[in-house]
Amino acid sequence: MAKVIGSIVSTQKDHSLVGKKLMIVQPINSDGKLVRCEEVAADAVGAGIGEYVLLVRGTGARRATGATSSEIQNDVNDCSIVGIIDRFDK
Amino acid sequence: MAKVIGSIVSTQKDHSLVGKKLMIVQPINSDGKLVRCEEVAADAVGAGIGEYVLLVRGTGARRATGATSSEIQNDVNDCSIVGIIDRFDK
Amino acid sequence: MAKVIGSIVSTQKDHSLVGKKLMIVQPINSDGKLVRCEEVAADAVGAGIGEYVLLVRGTGARRATGATSSEIQNDVNDCSIVGIIDRFDK
Amino acid sequence: MAKVIGSIVSTQKDHSLVGKKLMIVQPINSDGKLVRCEEVAADAVGAGIGEYVLLVRGTGARRATGATSSEIQNDVNDCSIVGIIDRFDK
Amino acid sequence: MAKVIGSIVSTQKDHSLVGKKLMIVQPINSDGKLVRCEEVAADAVGAGIGEYVLLVRGTGARRATGATSSEIQNDVNDCSIVGIIDRFDK
Repeated sequence: MAKVIGSIVSTQKDHSLVGKKLMIVQPINSDGKLVRCEEVAADAVGAGIGEYVLLVRGTGARRATGATSSEIQNDVNDCSIVGIIDRFDK
Repeated sequence: MAKVIGSIVSTQKDHSLVGKKLMIVQPINSDGKLVRCEEVAADAVGAGIGEYVLLVRGTGARRATGATSSEIQNDVNDCSIVGIIDRFDK
Repeated sequence: MAKVIGSIVSTQKDHSLVGKKLMIVQPINSDGKLVRCEEVAADAVGAGIGEYVLLVRGTGARRATGATSSEIQNDVNDCSIVGIIDRFDK
Repeated sequence: MAKVIGSIVSTQKDHSLVGKKLMIVQPINSDGKLVRCEEVAADAVGAGIGEYVLLVRGTGARRATGATSSEIQNDVNDCSIVGIIDRFDK
Repeated sequence: MAKVIGSIVSTQKDHSLVGKKLMIVQPINSDGKLVRCEEVAADAVGAGIGEYVLLVRGTGARRATGATSSEIQNDVNDCSIVGIIDRFDK
């Protein structure tokens, strides 16, 4: 779980990252408390600033943002936003 | 080891996550002490709020929640609940 | 490096974990100082309570506890005990 | 996100690392605050000392620095610089 | 980055670890400050006590210590020393 707090502008980057929206995300607990430290995640679901989102890492991250299996095979990305959290039920 | 403390409602998410129960889990020690920070895990064993559970990450997480190998191949999930803990023996 | 401090009883779990001994391990430094937090690891070497052990995670963990490659292919486990430490040489 | 703070000179190393620029990177938040601890990352984009960069780990790191798929198959590297950050938008 | 501070004697271990030198390593920053906690890493470059070394984890670790692809396929190791650091340039 994380909150989207901004985005990254990067001109010089691996070609597999071109065209991806790279968001700054701050991991949080379900009570909104900030935990760990900020990370950069590629957005696969159209998340906006201030929204709470689901993150995945590694292989899952590449599957989320790749349109074709060839794209996924060459992707260097290792962290993606894969869902927007509507509500925490506790 | 973690305790299930709630669940997540997410409408907009990767298609591989549709139909999965996404639980909020709080990692714990065997004495119940809270450690690290909360995470979201896909439930593969029908765990309920308040139960102590086993988590796995990465490839193992996708194997736990996928019904078919095609599902596993396309799954973006990277954290799953794979067991309910009945008792700590120390 | 970790110390085995107990075990887990879990009836309801992924079928690939059935028959595996799931131990509670506490990561340590070589001077015995406790570090990080407890974890659950599948035992591949017959480790007993109080012993110092080697842990591996991810793919290596599944190779350690699987008897056949089919078992390894379906295993959800992501942390295993792969050695018993006799002595720290410093 | 990290800041490049130096480089490593290493004569004796795995042959897959020969010819790679190994940079010392300090993870940061988007406000420049230092987080976690320093790491070594192979440079895939020509990053210089003082620049803010994007890091990836694991499989993605090997894809970023390998010129051929054979190189990627034999690479031991697990952390790479894959982009230079021009600006944080918050 | 880590400093080699000792080694491990382990008689009972996964067969893929037999014959490997298992070193105790303490992660450090480039100013020598100790960070995180000690780990065990398989040595692939002949590192000695007191030397500063490069570590890799996961797939890269198995490639570094395996002589043949069959060995790599069966290796359970997940952390290896892949280089000796001669100098930090900052």
